[in-house]
Amino acid sequence: MILKDLGEFNLINRLSKRVRLSAGVVKGIGDDAAVLRYKRDRHLLLTTDMLIEGRHFLRSSGGYLIGKKAMSVNVSDIAAMGGRPLAAVISLGAPPSLGVGFIDALYKGIREVAEKFKIDLVGGDTVRSEKIIINVALTGEVKKGNLVLRNGASPGDVIFVTGSIGGSLSGRHLSFTPRVKEALFLAENYRVHSMIDVSDGLIADLGHILRDSRVGGVIYERAIPLSRHAKDFNSAVMDGEDFELVFTVPGRDADKLLKAWPFKTRLSRIGEICPCPRRLYLVAKNKEIQKIKPKGYAHF
Amino acid sequence: MILKDLGEFNLINRLSKRVRLSAGVVKGIGDDAAVLRYKRDRHLLLTTDMLIEGRHFLRSSGGYLIGKKAMSVNVSDIAAMGGRPLAAVISLGAPPSLGVGFIDALYKGIREVAEKFKIDLVGGDTVRSEKIIINVALTGEVKKGNLVLRNGASPGDVIFVTGSIGGSLSGRHLSFTPRVKEALFLAENYRVHSMIDVSDGLIADLGHILRDSRVGGVIYERAIPLSRHAKDFNSAVMDGEDFELVFTVPGRDADKLLKAWPFKTRLSRIGEICPCPRRLYLVAKNKEIQKIKPKGYAHF
Repeated sequence: MILKDLGEFNLINRLSKRVRLSAGVVKGIGDDAAVLRYKRDRHLLLTTDMLIEGRHFLRSSGGYLIGKKAMSVNVSDIAAMGGRPLAAVISLGAPPSLGVGFIDALYKGIREVAEKFKIDLVGGDTVRSEKIIINVALTGEVKKGNLVLRNGASPGDVIFVTGSIGGSLSGRHLSFTPRVKEALFLAENYRVHSMIDVSDGLIADLGHILRDSRVGGVIYERAIPLSRHAKDFNSAVMDGEDFELVFTVPGRDADKLLKAWPFKTRLSRIGEICPCPRRLYLVAKNKEIQKIKPKGYAHF
Repeated sequence: MILKDLGEFNLINRLSKRVRLSAGVVKGIGDDAAVLRYKRDRHLLLTTDMLIEGRHFLRSSGGYLIGKKAMSVNVSDIAAMGGRPLAAVISLGAPPSLGVGFIDALYKGIREVAEKFKIDLVGGDTVRSEKIIINVALTGEVKKGNLVLRNGASPGDVIFVTGSIGGSLSGRHLSFTPRVKEALFLAENYRVHSMIDVSDGLIADLGHILRDSRVGGVIYERAIPLSRHAKDFNSAVMDGEDFELVFTVPGRDADKLLKAWPFKTRLSRIGEICPCPRRLYLVAKNKEIQKIKPKGYAHF
């Protein structure tokens, strides 16, 4: 058997299922970030993402946007836990023929995100490689009461999504703003039962929430906020890298949240959690109900 | 200008010099691991290393040894700070055609090092790539009193090295044991003024200590413990990936340390720190004194 037959999620499961964890771990493999014991009132978060030229970016996009993306995808993971980022270490693989101007632009993109979110850049590694490779590992912290996992969605919850969905390939995947302040507002002020960032695609990532929470859901085509860059509904909800937040709150808090939402970033109520484990239903614009499979982007 | 002209160390400096750090950082870029504020009596450590097929390992070495190495190089960095490892996140790039057996062996190597050093494997990322790429980011902790940096070497210090040096390419670079217990013993019981692990080469890494401590040193050819796999003296002290510890302690403690050393791992007194900034002298076997340049392996 080769990797392609195994699939990305089985690949990850294969590592995690034989792992024993110490009492220092609150949540290991299987959420947007790992959660570790830290201080009396807060947990430490740890996440990592690897970007490879040709898969996550093209060299022609320029160092600046690539550096921004490498940082932002990790910041988005910390946000999705209800936390704030702290410190990053960065591994860079690059060919010796790469122009120093490209590297300077890359570092400028990295530093800009770091400054915006008050992240300390504290170390790294540089390696010669044919393709440009950037791996960022980012720590963060979350107040214990603010921690939001994927597995707490509950029947009666309303499903929300921030911003708009789809068309990220037209450029937004390189220049999005991680939803840190929105997530902090939510975690501080609402009983957010579950949250995830949209990296694999809206349907796939909502699927992670449903699977881990052992519930099902209904979403409404008319309610899903499509980006003006989205090609069509199907590709919008299947494509990845929107880096918006999908989350659920108890139904009775939904209206209050919509009313109180203080940000320019859009907030959309797109559906509800139901007690039908793992099932996801889409109510199409013509009112037809479709059963859909939570699939999205997978590397293998 | 291209990367090759800039050189690896200038590449790292280029990022670090424009970075502003918060009060949460005890030591940023420029040591074996970053040091962050953590608990009342201890600091958090954070390090990362990226291994790429063809540069750090060959696929023919098999997944098991490659997995071990990917973990061990990071553990060695934590050890060189006087700390112990805590939790790791792992990014894996691999071609879809790679056999699942290879991946299982890789994970076995990773898990074995994790279990030996009680490291929690808490997350990661998987990406499709042509070459196999493994990035590990590892946290650790160090008692405040045990923290050892590169910059504390002082005239009159004696320079020590653990184990033997050279010939790592014959296989040891894939199967070495990080010197965690040795480093903990040293940090707990001795005034270790400076410490580093030998990744770039004995001369180069001692050079990092001299530069950061603004001192010089003398080492003795006859005192340097060559591995039986070493080709010759020059390549042994210039080649990298020995992953032994080089450290300095006050001269008056040197004999006591040699006497008390409780490990099977060899401990060698190889020289002394002198007050001549950045100069490194080698006393050859024929008593001739040579001035040498701290050079070693650089990726660019």
